[in-house]
Amino acid sequence: MATETLPVLAILGGTGELGTGLARRWAQAGYRVIIGSRTRDKAAAAAADLQAVMDQRGVAAVAVEGMDNLAAASAADIAALTVPFSHQTSTLEQVAAALQGKILIDVTVPLVPPRVARVQLPAAGSAGQIAQELLGEGVAVVSAFQNVAAAHLQESAAVDCDVLVCGNSKEARAEVIKLVQAAGMRGFHAGMINNAAAAEALTSVLIVINKQYNCHAGIKISGLESHG
Amino acid sequence: MATETLPVLAILGGTGELGTGLARRWAQAGYRVIIGSRTRDKAAAAAADLQAVMDQRGVAAVAVEGMDNLAAASAADIAALTVPFSHQTSTLEQVAAALQGKILIDVTVPLVPPRVARVQLPAAGSAGQIAQELLGEGVAVVSAFQNVAAAHLQESAAVDCDVLVCGNSKEARAEVIKLVQAAGMRGFHAGMINNAAAAEALTSVLIVINKQYNCHAGIKISGLESHG
Repeated sequence: MATETLPVLAILGGTGELGTGLARRWAQAGYRVIIGSRTRDKAAAAAADLQAVMDQRGVAAVAVEGMDNLAAASAADIAALTVPFSHQTSTLEQVAAALQGKILIDVTVPLVPPRVARVQLPAAGSAGQIAQELLGEGVAVVSAFQNVAAAHLQESAAVDCDVLVCGNSKEARAEVIKLVQAAGMRGFHAGMINNAAAAEALTSVLIVINKQYNCHAGIKISGLESHG
Repeated sequence: MATETLPVLAILGGTGELGTGLARRWAQAGYRVIIGSRTRDKAAAAAADLQAVMDQRGVAAVAVEGMDNLAAASAADIAALTVPFSHQTSTLEQVAAALQGKILIDVTVPLVPPRVARVQLPAAGSAGQIAQELLGEGVAVVSAFQNVAAAHLQESAAVDCDVLVCGNSKEARAEVIKLVQAAGMRGFHAGMINNAAAAEALTSVLIVINKQYNCHAGIKISGLESHG
């Protein structure tokens, strides 16, 4: 009996701390990971840096590559988007055709600098809805990971943070929840893509809390015991 | 040396499960609590029911009264609002003058039936902002308690849920955090009143999770350890 083939993952705009943190977690879990960036050189450099860290830890069997965003989106079965809000639309426009029939994990948080500690959701409701509208129904947009501190992904310990997973396709959400678990966290079906607003807004609240406690806060869902 | 006098608390629209749950927790903590409702009779009945439960537990020294909303708002130092979203504006218009110079704890969640599991924030951004705009700068609106299951407040155990406390006045937020603690929970300064959107949106997400797990879910802030 053949084991399930793992999907190939691309992380578009994946050279930052959050993108490489996800790449690292997923590569360690055995996934083939492609880091995408605006230029192939920048992506390749980030992939090489990550590979060096992995080699140092004796996780040599994994493959992390760098490509430009379009090539990465084309090569992937599932793509994640980890760019600043101001680059969300332009990046998605570039890769929209390559994503048809696939899952896009939107990690965009609609922060409006300089007031990133203030919730300022877009008129569309959320960045997740912007992505779904732009890509059309041929792409299953699933929002996730907005409340995970990149710093924790870069550590080796389990991440003490739950992930709210929103999207209009239950099957696509289930696929992303597998990836949340592969990255060392619990993922929750959190409703349709409109509900991305909750996780996106929460990021500003966590920024407020981080300042007070000098920490990288997250959230955990409590009270899961059935009340019969 | 005199001990600090506790503020008198009113819970406007407080005859429901959430309102009486807060009343019970605060009365048990020694506060004088007034349950407000559209009619004095309905409020008095809810207060009498609650007093009977308290007597049964031997917490006889506390005072829970019932008044109509306007009388309750006038008599209180701090008022909480626990009405459905559709009654938020009409209730606040009725008590606006009586609340000047005071703190209003807005517990309104802008759910839009029948799709309460879908985030549908108001054009103003949040119910908290609607309250602050309606009441004006003479009232310190602080949003809180949107993610606490009423069922848990009605139990005697500690509540395993954190409370996000948003408002434009830091001092008012600090007063409300004291009341969160008195009700058996941790409260967090979560930013300006705009950030109420995060807690309000999260309620729909928790409704989604409650359906899956047959539970009364809440959130806890994680990762509070300083990263030095």
